[in-house]
Amino acid sequence: MNCLEERILKDGVVKEGNVLKVDSFLNHQMDVELMNEIGKEFYRRFQHKPINKILTIEASGIAIAYAVAQQFHVPLLFAKKSKSINIAGDTYVAEVESFTHKNRNTVVVSKQFLNENDRVLIIDDFLANGAAINGLISIVEEAGAVLVGAGVCIEKGWQPGGDHLRGKGVKLVSLAVCDRIENGKIICRD
Amino acid sequence: MNCLEERILKDGVVKEGNVLKVDSFLNHQMDVELMNEIGKEFYRRFQHKPINKILTIEASGIAIAYAVAQQFHVPLLFAKKSKSINIAGDTYVAEVESFTHKNRNTVVVSKQFLNENDRVLIIDDFLANGAAINGLISIVEEAGAVLVGAGVCIEKGWQPGGDHLRGKGVKLVSLAVCDRIENGKIICRD
Repeated sequence: MNCLEERILKDGVVKEGNVLKVDSFLNHQMDVELMNEIGKEFYRRFQHKPINKILTIEASGIAIAYAVAQQFHVPLLFAKKSKSINIAGDTYVAEVESFTHKNRNTVVVSKQFLNENDRVLIIDDFLANGAAINGLISIVEEAGAVLVGAGVCIEKGWQPGGDHLRGKGVKLVSLAVCDRIENGKIICRD
Repeated sequence: MNCLEERILKDGVVKEGNVLKVDSFLNHQMDVELMNEIGKEFYRRFQHKPINKILTIEASGIAIAYAVAQQFHVPLLFAKKSKSINIAGDTYVAEVESFTHKNRNTVVVSKQFLNENDRVLIIDDFLANGAAINGLISIVEEAGAVLVGAGVCIEKGWQPGGDHLRGKGVKLVSLAVCDRIENGKIICRD
């Protein structure tokens, strides 16, 4: 069991409707020491691949992507939520449906910072239906960059995002796969 | 001249309407090595004060706050933009007007993570009219926590936020104060 799985079992909270809350250490208040361990673990899992950019999506992905980027000594790039419908031609655009917030966001990345010379590792905190990561993948593809892989902290094993990405051939590393919640207890996959 | 000022002069871009863009290294693509230097500099300036929490606001403040939090070895907490009008009673709420986006956001912090035992350093990327930092200060006050100070990467010297905060007695550290833009060139305060 890695440090993140241990922490989920210790401090993760199950709310009504089997919602897993990790906002005491991962996505509202953040335990920076834990994040740094997470950054090292992603580095260990992807270090044999040439990676020159970490891509994430605002907001809670940014801290984890930072922890990873400082291990690889490469820049961090985050897709910004955009409110304007009229996006200038100098950005890549993706539509991302938020599972948590039940809404759709347009996210953008400036074309200036991503192109066919880039080898990209996508990082995010949660993987549920995979909307955020699929949106980021479409941006990587539009840029003509190489997708090296994707790393997420917590995959919700009962939702299809992880299996869908693996089925597409994406090298996906999920540090903790939570398979189900039984009687208010979180069960992680071995 | 510190490393941030040097970088602004080297890579900052002045756009139409005298808008300073630093999105190649600070708030879209992020140079993590520079951020780590920024984190160390804020640590140097605030290390003599007892600080047990770094508070920022999503999205671009998160990476800088991370760099600072890992120097202090304390948790990072970020105020979340909230779309729902009906906020439950378990959050502190502030209204923040965005200078960049010309809109108002409701931001929230869970009461669980901020209380009268906390000694807080507020961190953000930009200080213009001070709306974001004033929103965060109101949250710190509502929590009964102690505001130790505020650190920003870039203060726009021609906007009133910085002077207003100093006038209120806030210990404010701005790593770079850009005083004006002359013929498309950025002039930083000594």
